Amino acid sequence: MPTDATFADHVSARVREILADTAASFGDISPAVDEFFVPAFELTSGGKRMRARLMATGVAVAQGSSDLDDAVVELGAALELFQAAALVHDDIIDDSDSRRGKPATHVAFAQRAPRESLEKPEILGKNSAILLGDLLIVLADQAAARAFAGLATAARQRCVALWSEMTSEVAIGQYLDVLNSTLPIAHTSASESLAAALRVVRHKSARYSVEHPLTLGVALGGGNDTLIAALARVGLPLGEAFQLRDDDLGVFGDPAETGKPAGDDLREGKRTPLLALTRQVANESELETLETHLGNRQLEADLISELREIIERSGTRAEHEKLIQEKLDESLTALADANVPADAAATLTELAHRLAHRTA
Amino acid sequence: MPTDATFADHVSARVREILADTAASFGDISPAVDEFFVPAFELTSGGKRMRARLMATGVAVAQGSSDLDDAVVELGAALELFQAAALVHDDIIDDSDSRRGKPATHVAFAQRAPRESLEKPEILGKNSAILLGDLLIVLADQAAARAFAGLATAARQRCVALWSEMTSEVAIGQYLDVLNSTLPIAHTSASESLAAALRVVRHKSARYSVEHPLTLGVALGGGNDTLIAALARVGLPLGEAFQLRDDDLGVFGDPAETGKPAGDDLREGKRTPLLALTRQVANESELETLETHLGNRQLEADLISELREIIERSGTRAEHEKLIQEKLDESLTALADANVPADAAATLTELAHRLAHRTA
Repeated sequence: MPTDATFADHVSARVREILADTAASFGDISPAVDEFFVPAFELTSGGKRMRARLMATGVAVAQGSSDLDDAVVELGAALELFQAAALVHDDIIDDSDSRRGKPATHVAFAQRAPRESLEKPEILGKNSAILLGDLLIVLADQAAARAFAGLATAARQRCVALWSEMTSEVAIGQYLDVLNSTLPIAHTSASESLAAALRVVRHKSARYSVEHPLTLGVALGGGNDTLIAALARVGLPLGEAFQLRDDDLGVFGDPAETGKPAGDDLREGKRTPLLALTRQVANESELETLETHLGNRQLEADLISELREIIERSGTRAEHEKLIQEKLDESLTALADANVPADAAATLTELAHRLAHRTA
Repeated sequence: MPTDATFADHVSARVREILADTAASFGDISPAVDEFFVPAFELTSGGKRMRARLMATGVAVAQGSSDLDDAVVELGAALELFQAAALVHDDIIDDSDSRRGKPATHVAFAQRAPRESLEKPEILGKNSAILLGDLLIVLADQAAARAFAGLATAARQRCVALWSEMTSEVAIGQYLDVLNSTLPIAHTSASESLAAALRVVRHKSARYSVEHPLTLGVALGGGNDTLIAALARVGLPLGEAFQLRDDDLGVFGDPAETGKPAGDDLREGKRTPLLALTRQVANESELETLETHLGNRQLEADLISELREIIERSGTRAEHEKLIQEKLDESLTALADANVPADAAATLTELAHRLAHRTA
């Protein structure tokens, strides 16, 4: 087996190749076609290839051996292209200016707007980014189909079902997030908010980011339904731990490590379980402070500190941390119960700790 | 063969079934999931199923016989779902309020915004519509994959290549349109504008709306590369005639028939070949009037009449009409040269006349 890093490099190279081939095949139409692809190359040059690595680990779980053939690299590229599409559209929806420490794709397009443009650069940037996201979705679907084409019928059917479920569910989960985030905080009770936030964690992120890549790998590696279900029980809580960690970093993370502004989720007013937990214990004046300032895009450093203190002081951050640990434990217990070859189990255990305790 | 109308009904029923099955499979998550699908049902209940019919005609071209099996209906549904996705995102990009006489999807979502929403309904509407478009793209890709799954290898490879080309090219063509439309009219010479507008006609619309559905049908029906190339020569000029007719309707069409406001393309400032041809012959004061008013969303009826008159008076509309006729003739000549069974040729001839001379 190539080492993790080598595999990620193969995936990155394949993503670049797919983008370059597509740009070339339409390049005769107009020089503007190449321009359209520039932000796609920029965006996909970053990232940790986490989904591709999880998927490759799933293959190893199923195969016991460690042959990572072209289909695995192709599916890895498909996952990364789909993730790139999701990021492009998410950043428009969340009105986020930066991603991985660089301008978000719609901002990059806005910066490249012709000087003479009649349309505001922001509008042109968003419109171009909607279209680039669309292109990345179809390129991802095409790569997945290529990865599955050579499989035996049963394996192919499992892969297609999982890929279809994943790509549909992430749009639905993101819609639920959009709906949640638009309601005033006090509009729903703290316990309803917690339930709604946990639903978004599961359906927008946990299944998409961890469970589905892992089970897709198992299916690609020829694993049967029992093994797929066993790894889903590993992946779902791990995905939840991953997202809860993300939510902690969204409030307390170091911009130098995360590549996002400090307190970004506070500025966005993101309705996380962390926020819902805070509401359950905050006093009246704290609740008022939260209500007033959450979702303010121009939130100053001192107010970010004040909001952070409310979350820390209430003991919520510690409780949230405990929840992450419980989800990680649940995942590792499910892993111990699954019939997984020792090498793959070791890789997955290491990945699990990294996902739950990362700082970036 | 079921009649045209029956086939279109089968396709419509299958589109509804795919949407309903998807909504049901995620329905347990939250009642909001059903809400997400409402605008999709509304949007896909309209339309003439033109792409599906062209594709079915392509199948008949290849098979000589007229068996329209499940795969044909499935590919028809895939084409209609993809078209729905394109409409949802196009209407956001063009900031169009209505489609087929009903509110555009982002407007429909905005109208359904919770009364308490913190986000402006317009923003919430657009964000929701971006996500629904994404979902429709992946559902379209899934349906296409199902349609192709049972084919012999060579036919499947041809279908996959055509579907991939189509879905990528439409995003690229739409991006070129966005770029063209943002430059001041006088920024490019009339002849450059004509070339750029014809590129958009070809790559955003003609290939996507006519050539690719037709050739996909031929490939699905087992036609070889020679037959596919022959039908591409029929489809491309017919697709151009179709889009040029659309451009004429966008200026001169009757809102009661088109379902769009009068002079919609003038309000949008759409850079059509019709406009480029007008620029080539307009005098200085006419050019100034065009420059000043094109792209004004609040354009009043009297100004729309004035702009229409400039286009008519210059003889451009008649010349544009001649161009449509030439494209139609080119297509029919290519059809006569292709080795197509008489029944299919008759159907295609009738469709061609309808596409080039429609009023809605």
